[in-house]
Amino acid sequence: MSTQSLTHGTVPQRMARIRELMSREGIHALLVPSADPHLSEYLPGYWQGRQWLSGFHGSVGTLIVTADFAGVWADSRYWEQATKELAGSGIELVKLQPGQPGPLEWLGEQTPEGGVVAVDGAVIAVASARTLSSKLEARGARLRTDIDLLNEAWQDRPALPNQPIYQHLPPYATVSRAEKLADLRKSLKEKGADWHFIATLDDIAWLFNLRGADVSFNPVFVSFALISQRQATLFVALGKVDAELRGILEQDGVTLRDYSEIAAALRDVPVGDSLQVDPARVTAGLLNNLASGVKWVEGLNPTTLAKSRKSLADAEHIRLAMEQDGAALCEFFAWFEGALGHQRITELTIDEHLTAARARRPGYVSLSFNTIAAFNANGAMPHYHATQAEHAVIEGDGLLLIDSGGQYLGGTTDITRMVPIGTPSEEQKRDCTRVLKGVIALSRAHFPKGILSPLLDAIARAPIWAQGVDYGHGTGHGVGYFLNVHEGPQVIAYQAAAAPQTAMQPGMITSIEPGTYRPGRWGVRIENLAMNLEAGKTEFGEFLKFETLTLCPIDTRCLLPSLLTGEEVQWLNDYHAQVRERLSPLLSGAALEWLQVRTAPV
Amino acid sequence: MSTQSLTHGTVPQRMARIRELMSREGIHALLVPSADPHLSEYLPGYWQGRQWLSGFHGSVGTLIVTADFAGVWADSRYWEQATKELAGSGIELVKLQPGQPGPLEWLGEQTPEGGVVAVDGAVIAVASARTLSSKLEARGARLRTDIDLLNEAWQDRPALPNQPIYQHLPPYATVSRAEKLADLRKSLKEKGADWHFIATLDDIAWLFNLRGADVSFNPVFVSFALISQRQATLFVALGKVDAELRGILEQDGVTLRDYSEIAAALRDVPVGDSLQVDPARVTAGLLNNLASGVKWVEGLNPTTLAKSRKSLADAEHIRLAMEQDGAALCEFFAWFEGALGHQRITELTIDEHLTAARARRPGYVSLSFNTIAAFNANGAMPHYHATQAEHAVIEGDGLLLIDSGGQYLGGTTDITRMVPIGTPSEEQKRDCTRVLKGVIALSRAHFPKGILSPLLDAIARAPIWAQGVDYGHGTGHGVGYFLNVHEGPQVIAYQAAAAPQTAMQPGMITSIEPGTYRPGRWGVRIENLAMNLEAGKTEFGEFLKFETLTLCPIDTRCLLPSLLTGEEVQWLNDYHAQVRERLSPLLSGAALEWLQVRTAPV
Repeated sequence: MSTQSLTHGTVPQRMARIRELMSREGIHALLVPSADPHLSEYLPGYWQGRQWLSGFHGSVGTLIVTADFAGVWADSRYWEQATKELAGSGIELVKLQPGQPGPLEWLGEQTPEGGVVAVDGAVIAVASARTLSSKLEARGARLRTDIDLLNEAWQDRPALPNQPIYQHLPPYATVSRAEKLADLRKSLKEKGADWHFIATLDDIAWLFNLRGADVSFNPVFVSFALISQRQATLFVALGKVDAELRGILEQDGVTLRDYSEIAAALRDVPVGDSLQVDPARVTAGLLNNLASGVKWVEGLNPTTLAKSRKSLADAEHIRLAMEQDGAALCEFFAWFEGALGHQRITELTIDEHLTAARARRPGYVSLSFNTIAAFNANGAMPHYHATQAEHAVIEGDGLLLIDSGGQYLGGTTDITRMVPIGTPSEEQKRDCTRVLKGVIALSRAHFPKGILSPLLDAIARAPIWAQGVDYGHGTGHGVGYFLNVHEGPQVIAYQAAAAPQTAMQPGMITSIEPGTYRPGRWGVRIENLAMNLEAGKTEFGEFLKFETLTLCPIDTRCLLPSLLTGEEVQWLNDYHAQVRERLSPLLSGAALEWLQVRTAPV
Repeated sequence: MSTQSLTHGTVPQRMARIRELMSREGIHALLVPSADPHLSEYLPGYWQGRQWLSGFHGSVGTLIVTADFAGVWADSRYWEQATKELAGSGIELVKLQPGQPGPLEWLGEQTPEGGVVAVDGAVIAVASARTLSSKLEARGARLRTDIDLLNEAWQDRPALPNQPIYQHLPPYATVSRAEKLADLRKSLKEKGADWHFIATLDDIAWLFNLRGADVSFNPVFVSFALISQRQATLFVALGKVDAELRGILEQDGVTLRDYSEIAAALRDVPVGDSLQVDPARVTAGLLNNLASGVKWVEGLNPTTLAKSRKSLADAEHIRLAMEQDGAALCEFFAWFEGALGHQRITELTIDEHLTAARARRPGYVSLSFNTIAAFNANGAMPHYHATQAEHAVIEGDGLLLIDSGGQYLGGTTDITRMVPIGTPSEEQKRDCTRVLKGVIALSRAHFPKGILSPLLDAIARAPIWAQGVDYGHGTGHGVGYFLNVHEGPQVIAYQAAAAPQTAMQPGMITSIEPGTYRPGRWGVRIENLAMNLEAGKTEFGEFLKFETLTLCPIDTRCLLPSLLTGEEVQWLNDYHAQVRERLSPLLSGAALEWLQVRTAPV
């Protein structure tokens, strides 16, 4: 992402200008979240206002500015970076910690009676705006969402991205957009909704079988969709769609309108009609355009559940993509083991070679996220990313953690493997073995169809908890089909709320990635993707089980096999036999040899 | 419990009288839940109005009466009984099933605009009344909670129970009432509450170190408590407290007032003061007495959490009570195995002999619930209870399930064991072994302090789910200390909401009781009680583990040891060694011999 826009003026100059505007508008506090009108994980430069104004470039953080205070709330991942970047800016780092008040609570406590808090309504979810608004009202203060102060101050604001939109075509697209639209309309009818408004980019890309390249790693495009029983309108910068595609979409009953016209379209929804919307996934500013006589039907976007349930035909493509991805990893590892000790290899070299190996594979489109290659102490930071300025050289003894993934036309991958460097210690091997026990325990589990996914987490953690060890991230996130590597609605995490929409359904793909992080020493994570398969109907109900999709050896040199039970050894050997069988046809030479060695039974 | 009161008039006569009264009062529908002003599990006869009016005597069920309809909503446990008892009454059985609308939903859908639904406010929780009221208001109907139609119609209504109240004394009571009251007041102060109202009988008994015998199995007494920083008032029928105890209570700053005066006392809470209350644990009728200027502080009763966290001194008494209970079971089993085949033994004989064995033990007070002795098909009904009219003779081949428990001055027990009769089948043994695997998996678990208890359930279920088997009840309920055998706030059940108050804390006692039920064939359940112990603080936080409290052999003749892992066999042998060591000193003769045989290692 470009940082060009950040070079104009200093942070103190920008802050001074913003405070002038706040004073002019009678605003007590300005809230600048890390968000865009689509509530996306990756933000186009146009929406990186918090970065521009504060000079803190971490991807997640919230800025609050008052006349005599400015602070960035950031979690522990970003404390080091934020401390450096905020130095001398007059902006404080407020360390965000579990159980401590966050920025909305701070505003709820610090805003004086009669005070006005402003946030660009375009970038705050309806649900968050409601929470904040009720906190403020309890103090006799109020929230304004109808003003974007940044826009006036930010003279060199980047343009919105403008990458062409293309079709996700058969055979990879296994359900037509006409069929998806029909299913969605059926679902709207059942809920009694006349209209449906979607702001989330992966829902839109999935629904229309379209893809783009407007943000990093996620093959989506900046857009909105407004659907009724008769109309389906896609709001995009019209220059992104060529005439041929426009014609195809029109034939499928999809009308194009300019991205900027969504506000007007929402204003035109007739009074008395009902509109389905997910208050956590649309922003307050957009929905403020609805007439007050439009009835809201609140609920998860139907596409979110539909998108999570991959079809059997999708699964066939995903299995092939996993084979290609596994083969790329084998080629990389064969090169890596041959080169180590003979040439200088850093965490950055690993990223380059691994990305190149993936790029040679058929169907490859891009990475699915920034590769994490993290040696020893760097591995203890779950979201570490090596940079030109700071990265480790791979030498000596220890553990190398590689977490990487690719976007293929037939699927999205995400895999973490541990690599022994020199001679890992017994303690390092013990950690790897315990983490693998967690992977195996959950991978082998059967469970009732419809169980709330957070309730499965303890199965993976039990062998790790047994040693007084835990990890702060979830065990599993949903994964898209040539779409976002992080998608809902399911999540395997005891920290997450066990909400009804997290129910496990056939065809969902979830990561299984327990870990162990010893700050300043090393980190361990092993990650496979797994798909929910029907495991049969018994007198006790319907059950699901996992099919492990990811295909790549788990390096047994990092393990203490004596800690594994007979059943766990069996799982590992069976897994490796399958990996060998399915990847061998795609490999030759050193990579094939490497595969054969690394899949030997223990 | 007496059924004498039910003999006056026929059900149709009673229903006719109630409908007359409804018509006089302009009431469209009358709701009669199974509840009392304390929202207890076991109801005194005075509050068995649903039984009296409908003739359906099951312990859980809800009656709705309108001018042209009457129905009892009951779950599957009661369908057979309700069908028989309601025959000819003109009252329908409405089968309550998961996912189907319950009685409140029915009222919300069927009540006409302008209609009035009445329920005795004394027996409906504030939270339920709110739910029902908002459903009715959405239809333009309304809820009345200020009228008790039953009272006028029910001429021979039983009196309230009137058993004497006594102290739970040291050494068994390990914290004084003065200390408990001081802790409670500290907690109220932190929440900003001036007052606290308690209606739940076990909270009251625990807080004041008092016990009674007003309901079956739970050593509690019918009462309310109203606490402020300066006053602690206990509302009971004054005849239950003798002069000596009254003096002792007064010395500890506890004032007694008659049970009937609670309404007046609530009316006297000064406007402007705040009162802490749990809307799920007090009834609407009582709280309607509060002036509208009294501020409600809503939350779990502080005593509910405090009561759940047994002290180290409590734990010492509980361990001794478990030894006595285990010894009673050994004596029973030694008799049972000797007598089987030589005399006629039924499910009822088992109850008699087992109860007698417990009653011989020091510190024994009563059973903690109705003994479940259930042979083969009867075991498939988790809440089965044999009666004089219907019970099985123990003969032939199969599985006998015995779920029983006692109240001792130093603790409450609850244990389920499986007993092989003749030659159990391979399939029966497989079920027993899988259930035991679930018990062992959870018993061995370590877990983060404060984890929400429903999230642990999957650990016990994983080995059972693996076979496509599940069970409809929770894996674990909290257990009191010479108090209710079912208490909160924790619950190990994936069906339960993972609410913040379910967090696991040191000293909590929970049952671990997975099962397998094959309708019409047999049922398996194995149950131990386990206490949360500190398992140490590591760099990853504080952890808890379970101490298995229950001491009684698990009959290995019901098992297929080949299905157990090495670690599971180790757990079982270690458990049996401990059972042998701790129970041997309390036994002699045939019972000691039985213990030695049944604790032999596998």
